[in-house]
Amino acid sequence: MKKELEIFYRLFTTTREAIEKFMNMLDPVIQNASDDHERLYYHHIYEEEEQRLSRLEVLIPLISKFEAEKDDKDFTPTNNEFNRLLQELNLEKFGLHNFVEHLDLALFRFTDEERSTMLNQLREVTYQDYQQVKEMLNEINRRFDHDYIDPHAHHDEDHEHLDRSASTPAAAQSIPSTYRKGFTVGSLI
Amino acid sequence: MKKELEIFYRLFTTTREAIEKFMNMLDPVIQNASDDHERLYYHHIYEEEEQRLSRLEVLIPLISKFEAEKDDKDFTPTNNEFNRLLQELNLEKFGLHNFVEHLDLALFRFTDEERSTMLNQLREVTYQDYQQVKEMLNEINRRFDHDYIDPHAHHDEDHEHLDRSASTPAAAQSIPSTYRKGFTVGSLI
Repeated sequence: MKKELEIFYRLFTTTREAIEKFMNMLDPVIQNASDDHERLYYHHIYEEEEQRLSRLEVLIPLISKFEAEKDDKDFTPTNNEFNRLLQELNLEKFGLHNFVEHLDLALFRFTDEERSTMLNQLREVTYQDYQQVKEMLNEINRRFDHDYIDPHAHHDEDHEHLDRSASTPAAAQSIPSTYRKGFTVGSLI
Repeated sequence: MKKELEIFYRLFTTTREAIEKFMNMLDPVIQNASDDHERLYYHHIYEEEEQRLSRLEVLIPLISKFEAEKDDKDFTPTNNEFNRLLQELNLEKFGLHNFVEHLDLALFRFTDEERSTMLNQLREVTYQDYQQVKEMLNEINRRFDHDYIDPHAHHDEDHEHLDRSASTPAAAQSIPSTYRKGFTVGSLI
């Protein structure tokens, strides 16, 4: 479990820095928004990432503490603290997923080279880290519970809608093109 | 504390129903989106509310359980379970805040009478419930900790940006007009 905690520590530290870059990019956009709708839109995304940042600022030291203090025997879901940590990691898995979509939304709007390069870079890393966190949590949960089923697995199995590798190389450099018409909402429910 | 739990139970049950109405409204919009950007935008909001719905489906029974089983002596932050409940209630306070903004974003787009009437109604209730949850959590935290400061209080003190009462009655019926130019992002940090 300590190895996994090391990886979680690294991934969430990386994403914390990514949020700061993203917020710095959005700041002037919000200030210079041309109307209320635009201002709300960017401010809302900004705020959601700000909330995530606050949670990470609690979670990251908590992972560290767990890494430092705990023995293998503490890593069981009957251990209240461990169970709570798992729950928070699960929440932040969704946080990473939502961040990928915030970056994709920003990529539709900020098409200048400087911003789209930075956003694409953040997007690539965040997407990979999201996949890794998802897989690690599935494995940890399976380790402790042979009947574990990820309640949101259907969401990814039916259509890995965050996967950009299906697009052409040229398209992959610019705007995401994976949100196709065939994507059905029905399968989310 | 039991009285507060009753209120939380009611408020979160109300918002769970509100999410379902909102998701039902967004469903055909996503299906009929005219391009990838539009599809992503609505699907993203839909997904964030779907995640919130999943959390509420765990939280609501938990509140019930706490109401039924616990005595006053259990309602202390040194009680791990109670502390955890408070943390989840705090998260859902932000969930309500974000839902208000999702509704405001939808109000900018869905200006037909049927949808704007429904969205406005959901918005009014959600905003009031958000204020109530915020106040109750502040009071509960103060009760247990005289030095408690809401880490996000600055956000609301500087500019209650969700408050629509400042707008004219006519404007209040239609799109939100409280996201004014004077609103500075700097004070969020």
